[in-house]
Amino acid sequence: MSFEVEIGLGKRGRTAYSLDDVAVVPTRRTRDPKDVSLAWKIDAFEFESPVIGAPMDSIMSPETAILLGKLGGLGVLDLEGLWTRYENPEPVLEEIAALEAADFSPANTLRLQQLYNAPIQAELISARLEQIREAGVVVAGSLSPQHTQQFYQTVLEAGVDIFVIRGTTVSAEHVSQNQEPLNLKQFIYELDVPVIVGGVAGYTPALHLMRTGAAGVLVGFGGGASGTTHRSLGIHVPMATAISDIAEARRDYMDESGGRYVHVIADGATGTSGDIVKALAMGADAVMLGAALARASEAPGKGWHWGPEARHPELPRGNRVNVGTVGSMEEVLWGPGHHTDGTSNLMGALRRSMATTGYSDLKKFQSVDVMVTP
Amino acid sequence: MSFEVEIGLGKRGRTAYSLDDVAVVPTRRTRDPKDVSLAWKIDAFEFESPVIGAPMDSIMSPETAILLGKLGGLGVLDLEGLWTRYENPEPVLEEIAALEAADFSPANTLRLQQLYNAPIQAELISARLEQIREAGVVVAGSLSPQHTQQFYQTVLEAGVDIFVIRGTTVSAEHVSQNQEPLNLKQFIYELDVPVIVGGVAGYTPALHLMRTGAAGVLVGFGGGASGTTHRSLGIHVPMATAISDIAEARRDYMDESGGRYVHVIADGATGTSGDIVKALAMGADAVMLGAALARASEAPGKGWHWGPEARHPELPRGNRVNVGTVGSMEEVLWGPGHHTDGTSNLMGALRRSMATTGYSDLKKFQSVDVMVTP
Amino acid sequence: MSFEVEIGLGKRGRTAYSLDDVAVVPTRRTRDPKDVSLAWKIDAFEFESPVIGAPMDSIMSPETAILLGKLGGLGVLDLEGLWTRYENPEPVLEEIAALEAADFSPANTLRLQQLYNAPIQAELISARLEQIREAGVVVAGSLSPQHTQQFYQTVLEAGVDIFVIRGTTVSAEHVSQNQEPLNLKQFIYELDVPVIVGGVAGYTPALHLMRTGAAGVLVGFGGGASGTTHRSLGIHVPMATAISDIAEARRDYMDESGGRYVHVIADGATGTSGDIVKALAMGADAVMLGAALARASEAPGKGWHWGPEARHPELPRGNRVNVGTVGSMEEVLWGPGHHTDGTSNLMGALRRSMATTGYSDLKKFQSVDVMVTP
Amino acid sequence: MSFEVEIGLGKRGRTAYSLDDVAVVPTRRTRDPKDVSLAWKIDAFEFESPVIGAPMDSIMSPETAILLGKLGGLGVLDLEGLWTRYENPEPVLEEIAALEAADFSPANTLRLQQLYNAPIQAELISARLEQIREAGVVVAGSLSPQHTQQFYQTVLEAGVDIFVIRGTTVSAEHVSQNQEPLNLKQFIYELDVPVIVGGVAGYTPALHLMRTGAAGVLVGFGGGASGTTHRSLGIHVPMATAISDIAEARRDYMDESGGRYVHVIADGATGTSGDIVKALAMGADAVMLGAALARASEAPGKGWHWGPEARHPELPRGNRVNVGTVGSMEEVLWGPGHHTDGTSNLMGALRRSMATTGYSDLKKFQSVDVMVTP
Repeated sequence: MSFEVEIGLGKRGRTAYSLDDVAVVPTRRTRDPKDVSLAWKIDAFEFESPVIGAPMDSIMSPETAILLGKLGGLGVLDLEGLWTRYENPEPVLEEIAALEAADFSPANTLRLQQLYNAPIQAELISARLEQIREAGVVVAGSLSPQHTQQFYQTVLEAGVDIFVIRGTTVSAEHVSQNQEPLNLKQFIYELDVPVIVGGVAGYTPALHLMRTGAAGVLVGFGGGASGTTHRSLGIHVPMATAISDIAEARRDYMDESGGRYVHVIADGATGTSGDIVKALAMGADAVMLGAALARASEAPGKGWHWGPEARHPELPRGNRVNVGTVGSMEEVLWGPGHHTDGTSNLMGALRRSMATTGYSDLKKFQSVDVMVTP
Repeated sequence: MSFEVEIGLGKRGRTAYSLDDVAVVPTRRTRDPKDVSLAWKIDAFEFESPVIGAPMDSIMSPETAILLGKLGGLGVLDLEGLWTRYENPEPVLEEIAALEAADFSPANTLRLQQLYNAPIQAELISARLEQIREAGVVVAGSLSPQHTQQFYQTVLEAGVDIFVIRGTTVSAEHVSQNQEPLNLKQFIYELDVPVIVGGVAGYTPALHLMRTGAAGVLVGFGGGASGTTHRSLGIHVPMATAISDIAEARRDYMDESGGRYVHVIADGATGTSGDIVKALAMGADAVMLGAALARASEAPGKGWHWGPEARHPELPRGNRVNVGTVGSMEEVLWGPGHHTDGTSNLMGALRRSMATTGYSDLKKFQSVDVMVTP
Repeated sequence: MSFEVEIGLGKRGRTAYSLDDVAVVPTRRTRDPKDVSLAWKIDAFEFESPVIGAPMDSIMSPETAILLGKLGGLGVLDLEGLWTRYENPEPVLEEIAALEAADFSPANTLRLQQLYNAPIQAELISARLEQIREAGVVVAGSLSPQHTQQFYQTVLEAGVDIFVIRGTTVSAEHVSQNQEPLNLKQFIYELDVPVIVGGVAGYTPALHLMRTGAAGVLVGFGGGASGTTHRSLGIHVPMATAISDIAEARRDYMDESGGRYVHVIADGATGTSGDIVKALAMGADAVMLGAALARASEAPGKGWHWGPEARHPELPRGNRVNVGTVGSMEEVLWGPGHHTDGTSNLMGALRRSMATTGYSDLKKFQSVDVMVTP
Repeated sequence: MSFEVEIGLGKRGRTAYSLDDVAVVPTRRTRDPKDVSLAWKIDAFEFESPVIGAPMDSIMSPETAILLGKLGGLGVLDLEGLWTRYENPEPVLEEIAALEAADFSPANTLRLQQLYNAPIQAELISARLEQIREAGVVVAGSLSPQHTQQFYQTVLEAGVDIFVIRGTTVSAEHVSQNQEPLNLKQFIYELDVPVIVGGVAGYTPALHLMRTGAAGVLVGFGGGASGTTHRSLGIHVPMATAISDIAEARRDYMDESGGRYVHVIADGATGTSGDIVKALAMGADAVMLGAALARASEAPGKGWHWGPEARHPELPRGNRVNVGTVGSMEEVLWGPGHHTDGTSNLMGALRRSMATTGYSDLKKFQSVDVMVTP
């Protein structure tokens, strides 16, 4: 089915490509950027842009989830983060931003582990989601697979439009001899709201996830911390290959299901507008952004960025990293831009890239020509 | 038609090579450098060297366009740059050279955006071109596709020998629902002067451009700012592959047109003499130089270099970069050289490279052997 | 048998991959980490983890060999190191840790050469092994092939459970016109204890070593000093390819021998938990750790690490390098971890990696999917 | 005949490998280093090692040519260098060593150009060669192709055992309309002494050079300055591929000539013992060393190194670079070594590498297994 390299006499493996290894190439007509649509629709929800704010405390607070919604994207609140552990997380966010040690210091990791040791409070889950709902934007919250059974009732009662289950790796078939695992298929079937679930990083596990009834799958493993995940776990999933594999699973599942279209959402490795362009070119329907939004002046991280993997109690696999601030979230997404490194006017860049290669909507852009650049 | 790599199950792409990925190799006789001719002829115009000065304010003023003409090349003035926006651009050039922030600072970008916000004045277009004409060299000016319809009459009346239309990407088929796009084929047909048009970066769009009647096509995308373009737009066109693809389009178009030879001009990624050698080896007829000429002491940029993409009002994709000064334009082009990094005596190096591999003219040198070096 | 690249018209070679070139990928079910077993058994000896402490003075003293044994691994004492050359090696270890010159200084190398010039004392071999035996853990000591004939009687009389013969390269067929070489096959046959022997780095020489009756082979060449070995000897054996080749030899030898299973032990290039994961994924049964254990606070090297090749009297091919200290040996192996770079909780990371990819024991994990990442 | 990559639709090229891209691998028996012979014989001259000192002023003076001869190698004096331009070159060498500017400064290049502008004096050629002859070692001197006709009579009368013609590229068929080129075939035929000639860098031109009657060919292009040559001329010849190609030419020429064996000598890119090992493994019979010998305390360069290309009057393509000093020439070649980076005990390392891979003489070692390491 696909070309394999002989690593040694006893082992073969496919060659996998990161987004850095590929590039979009212009190959036909050009188009007026004004004619390009960035609209994205999942289930009954329409968005002006294919942008999802990742459920990470450094970027998504109730306020920034609302802001992102008003700017045409979908904000997802981490329902196991600081906002549901602390009545007022602001001092905690300030402490994290003020940690003095270097980025990769174990002292930082230890402090993150301690701060996230505060218990999740169900009433805070309700309150935070209600705050977002009142603002009139699409409401989305995220739980890890480990906590889904414990808190999903709270989430549903508080009311979400889109339910996100996000872990390092989520499979449709989790095996445990210790506790009854979450039956994703039954869980999703019984739920009234669309579910986005992941990370997942291969054709077969993605196909299985699609069969659970998910509305979308998150493609990735370890998010922006893929470097440390690689060093720690030896697991690495280059995104260009992962997205393209799972786009193929989407196609095959659509066929076997008689037409269900499951959205493929790139989650991780999309820190610049160029990365976003390439993720969509590889077949993604939308992108879940982390660092790219952490650079907004409204981001709760105040120029710092960290994910759930950075505060894992036993096996931390990420760091608090300095991403800086480049402008308001509106400037980051829609410009105008004064940065030449792909960190501002992300959607303007996407629009221009599509215009330059002759495409007017995101779905067709998935078939744009790309090259591999060694 | 050509080998494709499977990036993932849903996406394939050709492997593309930059000039850094290839090298010329000696494989037959050697030749006396004195017997090597660097002559280049396009339409009715003959030049001692295959060198075109890129229409960028950091290198081409009326004075340096004249100087380059007298040194055996073709200078192209940017007719939308500082020289047609300011009666006296010298203070502006001095301000740009004196900007204090680091190369990649948004403050620089913002100031460039402001300085280039001054309106283009038709009478300055006329005056600048007249100045060049009076010096007795070949006159060439450049407009972007966006401004061609507005100013081309002014340009023609002022009198140019060669008309250049240069944008990030120019296609023969630009689609817009908002304004009637420039019909390149009709435009070129009605024009009396030869037209060089680009950037273009693939076999098919280049073939289409050739069919418009262009005398030459500029191969490239984003010029010397290809790094930032890659980060911003996700688009990247490795030059070795692009030139070679378009050289093949030249061959095929010559066949289908019954003998029209359209010149292939490498525009970008040719900052050293080694790069120039390789661009010609890949099939280019000439090179449009940017940074390589910005290092001349007469260059208006005073050791700094920036292109049109650096001052784009919404989506800047380049920077003012420090290239330094290595000697007079004559030393840069013809030596003698005291620099060992391929920045001076560019034509001397080209001549020696051709001699070492046994070629005596540029056309035959296009078939020199090359190797791919991982 | 396997794909070869044409390097030039007169030479071909296989492409070889390091552990950095490959990555494990999740492809099926996930599993509860609690269900994962890391147990490893060689001959009659069972261990809670597939970890062997390399016979290097910077990590293995009698005390740390005992500690590692109690933590579920196997410590191997270098019987030609400081502990058998000095009654009290502590001052020597302190001097090495206090050497002031930079890592790659010839002054350091010279001092190491001098310090290791002290003669090996047979009675110290006996005393050190006895000390380990009294602690109740599995006793293992290592000799180089050059000294095996001189000291193995001493070792056997002192009593070891596992005998290790470790050199840069050990072959089953060593040819010398000057002295009768060690006949490995006869030596191992006559010995009562299981023998682990290496390094070895190819299918054929590994197969020959397996035929000598060895219980395990050490895969590698030059250990953690492979960089300097490459520069010095021009010899380099990328570990992913080497392990996989020798895992195939294990399979073939098991067939030809009617079922003898020879353990494949990765020796070198496994400095992080990610590396360990990948070594096992390529087919290794266990890993011999150097730098990874030198980072334990109990390590005799006190944050410095060096191997036998660093003190070779004529051709030193390694250096005393600073690896730092990350925590107790228990934290290094079993956590909890506050380091995100794969240097602590090595076994926790391995367990999680296996769980994430759906494996519950080490043998099956050898068939996990991997990708090649350029 | 060999695999070609499609660079673009109009251009193909072979993939070429440098010595850094390959590594020797142990694959069979091991051998006692004491049984390994490093002897090399060309024409009637026998040497204890396959080492030729490159004709460069930074390494070869009459004194060091003699010293190298006594240490078992062949020193070649540059007969167009400082020793034949200055009665007493010592102050010039001191000035070069004391140049204050950074390595890549044009000021250095200019000064080198000036210092080498002094005329070559025929009587100094005679005197220098006589000095070497009197010491009783094999006498070898080098001229460039440009000066061969002018000075070879002087050289022959002074008496050399081996005549070296060395330029950036030397071909058997040099074409010039300005001056009658050197007819290499006739020249070599009429000469009484064996001739070594190069650089040459491909199968076909090497085969042609072999047909001139040369005793040996120098493989390379631009020597140790290949980086700057690449930037300047766009020409680059990765050494692993070049040596292997020309080793094949040696084989084919031996067949067509009925048994003439032309020595293949790697000239450049062999700065460490590992490089030397690999050059021989690719098929070289000997190595011409530059930087490796410039690190000897007796080297005239006093820790600095430069070649003829660094002082080219119009197109300098190299620099005076700091290589430092590691020990006496004896230590550099034969040890003992306290350097772990392949800069001392070069022959000890070669001997050990051959022993480790089971070879006892250089000719057989040419067939050692190698791997390509990406």
